[in-house]
Parts: sequence; structure tokens; C-alpha cells
Amino acid sequence: MAVYTEVDDEALGAFLHLYDIGEAVAFKGVAEGVENSNYLLETTQARFILTLYEKRVNPDDLPFFMGVMDTLSDAGFPSPQPVKAKDGSILQTLNDRPAAIVTFLKGMSPRRPDVDQCRQIGAAMARMHKALSASKLSRPNDLSLPAWPALFEGREETANSLAPNLAALIAGDLERLQDQWPDPAQLPQGVIHADLFPDNAFFLGEHFSGVIDYYFACHDMLAYDVAIALNAWCFEARGEFNMTKGKALMAGYDGERAFTEAELKALPALIHGAAMRFFLTRLVDWTDTPADALVRPKNPVEYAEKLGFHRMAHSVTDYGYDGAVTGV
Amino acid sequence: MAVYTEVDDEALGAFLHLYDIGEAVAFKGVAEGVENSNYLLETTQARFILTLYEKRVNPDDLPFFMGVMDTLSDAGFPSPQPVKAKDGSILQTLNDRPAAIVTFLKGMSPRRPDVDQCRQIGAAMARMHKALSASKLSRPNDLSLPAWPALFEGREETANSLAPNLAALIAGDLERLQDQWPDPAQLPQGVIHADLFPDNAFFLGEHFSGVIDYYFACHDMLAYDVAIALNAWCFEARGEFNMTKGKALMAGYDGERAFTEAELKALPALIHGAAMRFFLTRLVDWTDTPADALVRPKNPVEYAEKLGFHRMAHSVTDYGYDGAVTGV
Repeated sequence: MAVYTEVDDEALGAFLHLYDIGEAVAFKGVAEGVENSNYLLETTQARFILTLYEKRVNPDDLPFFMGVMDTLSDAGFPSPQPVKAKDGSILQTLNDRPAAIVTFLKGMSPRRPDVDQCRQIGAAMARMHKALSASKLSRPNDLSLPAWPALFEGREETANSLAPNLAALIAGDLERLQDQWPDPAQLPQGVIHADLFPDNAFFLGEHFSGVIDYYFACHDMLAYDVAIALNAWCFEARGEFNMTKGKALMAGYDGERAFTEAELKALPALIHGAAMRFFLTRLVDWTDTPADALVRPKNPVEYAEKLGFHRMAHSVTDYGYDGAVTGV
Repeated sequence: MAVYTEVDDEALGAFLHLYDIGEAVAFKGVAEGVENSNYLLETTQARFILTLYEKRVNPDDLPFFMGVMDTLSDAGFPSPQPVKAKDGSILQTLNDRPAAIVTFLKGMSPRRPDVDQCRQIGAAMARMHKALSASKLSRPNDLSLPAWPALFEGREETANSLAPNLAALIAGDLERLQDQWPDPAQLPQGVIHADLFPDNAFFLGEHFSGVIDYYFACHDMLAYDVAIALNAWCFEARGEFNMTKGKALMAGYDGERAFTEAELKALPALIHGAAMRFFLTRLVDWTDTPADALVRPKNPVEYAEKLGFHRMAHSVTDYGYDGAVTGV
């Protein structure tokens, strides 16, 4: 929700000389994305998004993220497409930051996705996974199970200040997740989005129109991406899971790529773990964001409430799945 | 540089039902304007800016600001045009804020205006003044001479923390300005922009393409608008006035609407006063902006340096004007 690095007309003009996309006719910083500086760039030819990557993004990961977007666009999956400079390169430097231009994608993000949008995003995610299945791109998920204990360490008091006894509950969750976490080798893996929240999905009218923001994409179990989306799309307020939405999202996915039996068994732990990942990173941001930061951290309590639901769930049917599998 | 009020897809969809401008296909908060929340709105018909007016704008002033933009657009001066709702109204309420939709204007703001851009903005300002000359719209300038002592009161220490002895210099300036301030009745008056900084001017390639952000517009001496622009467009770093730019800006204006002799005599005091107005409001923001605000205040020192130049200047020729008038 901020522009960290200002780009003036002179810097932009010089930068655009690297490209064959015409002259700038409009240029506006957009309050979108909490990690990077994004500008909406209109040229005499078309509209684009210019992104300057700020310090939270590892420059070494950028070729991977760009490759994911490029692969998806080439496969016809609606995603911003990186624009090549005259010399064929995708990544440049602008105002001392890594920078790239991608195509502009139309669409609106739903604030309160309805059941049909959950179904559509499930189906879109499966198509995205299939489009990326032949990819040789690789990046480990550095925010998965092994990372969580260190994220929690030293933040027990903050957790307890958010909700009574929360630190002990989280410690219990972490133990249970260590026990129940599936063996990745037993599940289909590939490149996942890993942050497919409604903010990052576009619809035009009632119809899915695209996915943006691939800056957490990584290689992991495909079902873990579904688990993240179930957390992000299917909860109502106060940690109430909407089983109709859960069923729709999973059915949408299943219709494009059928879940394996191992995935269905693993999903409750993956969903629980996905909530843990977002709870912990929000807890870290909550603790570490300076009071004068341009971005307000998201309250971790939303995910603490979701963890409360997952503690009680034991089978994928508790999330609305009504296939033949009977649970763990 | 911020979006204060979030507008989600549902609120926007309901809001657009008031209008006949199609359905939304893209909607992005733009990091532009420090006073209000601005969104770039693309519909199936065209592009627009949706603004939600935040607490620093007096809702009673909004019909005036909208009227100014409407008058200018009707006169063919490139300005955002307020879009009428189906019921003919221009101002609505959205998320408890006054809100309006205006047309989108292409163009880029120059960060370091060159001499020709100074000439063009001078000419554009004169055309703007002429386009507004028949207007019956009225709003007093509440940030002019009478307001300044109260803005400075109690901020002497802050001033001295910015530069040695600054408080005494400002007090001296305020006295001198009280003495030298022209009698408004002796000068051409009308509706002025009152904030025509390069940020608020657009160029397409080399050519002036429009003016935005009329939220300080008011009724005052026309030459005071020129005085504000000379401060905003014609200084280099460290309070160095660029006389070539000053000459170009005044010549551009003069070519469209000739300065009166009284205006040329009054300009040094008006230029000095315009710098005082921006110094003081920045000083207030510097003192009063909470550390956790979404907007960082602008440093008042830039205008303290400009005041230093104006203290030494005595005639409009000191600003580059080379007409026949010999000064005060």
C-alpha cells in the first residue's frame, strides 16, 4: 500500500529508452502490494506495471518469479507478462533497485468472494499448476514447516497480548504440525503461487480474469497452495469457516486436476500449516514494523482465529470436501 | 502519497450504479495527492479518477472546487471534468466521505521543469485565469496574509531548530510583508489555482497537457498565483533562483494576459508572501504530523531558503522580468 521509491519523469524517460514500448503518457504510483513500489505506466502503445523491487525481495529470486509469469503467460494463463527490453533482458536497474515492466491485467479483486468465485479460483489454481508442471524453474519454500519455530521464538509474549493463552496454543500447534506434516515425496509437487489471496486475483464481472503477485511463488506440494487458498478465501469473520465455499474451491480444483488420495489425507495438516505460516509472518510484522512505517501491519488475530478452527478439524470433509475419501 | 479510505469492489459496484459510465474493469488506489484518497477507475467506457475527500478538505468548499474544474473543462482548458451522476449531481457520499468522479487526464509531471516548460506553464496559467474570469464562483483565500501570524505563533523554536536565527528572520519577513502587501483592490482579481506546483501540471512530450488538483483554488489577486508558480517552478537547489526560468514564466503569462503596472510593482511582495505561505504550512505540518502518519511532511527548509532570496530582491527585474517597468 505504498510507493517506497520515487521515479521522476527524467528517470522514467531514460529507462524507457531500454524498451521498444513507446513513450510515457501517464505514470502513477499505485497503492498496491506491500513489498514493492508499483507504478501504472501508460505509453503511446499500451499499459504496463513498472515494479521496483524493494529490500524484502531477494534479487536472486527475481529470475524465478519472472520465469513463472512468463511461463504462465505463454501457456495462456492470465498473468502479467514480463516485457523484454531491446536487448532481450527482463530485469533492469532503476534508481538503484532491480526493476521490471510487466503487462497490465484488467480486473477487480473481490473483497468478499462468493461461492462461485471460490469455485473459479480453485479451478484457476489447478490450471495454473498444470501450466507450470513442465517448468524447470525452482525455488525452495523458505516459509514452510522448518522455518516456523524460529519465527515464533521470542514472540510468545506478543502472542499472549493478542489473545489469552495463545502462545501455548501455538506451541501445541507447532508440535502437532511436526507430527502430522506429510512427506512431500508422497504428494504431487510443482511450482505454487503460495500467496493466492483474493487481493491477488482478478475478476471481470462474474468471471475470473487473472492472477497477479507471484513474489512468494516457490516449489512445494501443490495441495499446500490449495490449503493457503482455503484459508484466504473460505473464512467468514471471527474464524468461521464457510464449508460451502470450501467445497466449491476444492471441487473447482478437483475438476481440473483430481486430488490424489494422499493429498486429501494430507490436506487438514496442510490447511492448518498454511494458517500457521500466515499467523507467524503477521506476528513478526506486528512486532517488527516501526510505528512510522508507511505500511500498517496486518493484525495476526485473524489467523489466530483460523488456527482455532483447524485445531478442531480432522478430515478434509470438515472443510466441505464430499468425495469418497473418509479422512485421516 | 496515500490512500486513506479503502473502497472495495462491492462498495464501488453500488456507487457506480449512480452513474451512467459503465462497469468497472480496473480500480487501483493511486499514491498521489497528500490530502485525499484517489483511485484510478477504468470502466467499460473510459478512465476516471475517483476521489474521496478526507478531513482536511471542508465539504462546504467542494461545490466551489467542482465548479472551477467544470468551468475550465467547458472553456476548453485541459482540466479533469467532474462527471455527473444520473440525477445530475456531482458530489456523492462513499464510505462516509464526500466523493466525486472526474475524467482522467493524460500527462507526466516534470520533476525538474526546464525553461520552456516554465514558459508554457506561465501561458497556461494566464489562459486558466481568463477561462475563470467570467465565473461567479467564490471562495476566500484562507491561507493568505491575515492567516500567517497565527500559523507561526508557538513554532519559533521549531524554526530555530531548522536553521540558526530563522525565527527572527521570519518575524522580520512578516512585518515587512504587512507593510508591503498590495491593496487587492488595485490589482486584477479572480479565481486562482493557488497550488500550481509541477506535481499538479502535466506535459505530454514537450507540450503542456493539463492542470490537476484544484483543492486550494480560491478568489485572490491573479498575480499571487504567478508568485506561487515562480516559487514552485523557478528555483534550483539551495534557494538559487533561476532568472531565465523566471523570465520565461512571466513572459509566458504576459503573452496571454499582460501584467498591469500595479501587478509588476506588487510582484516582489507577492512572491515573498507566497514563499511565506508555503514555509508556514510546511512548518505546521512538520510540527503536527504524527510520527506514524501515512504521509511524511515536506521539509520547510526548502522554503526558508527561498525566503532568503526574496529578502534580497526588490524589483520584478530581480526575478528576470525584462519589460519596461523599473521596479518599486
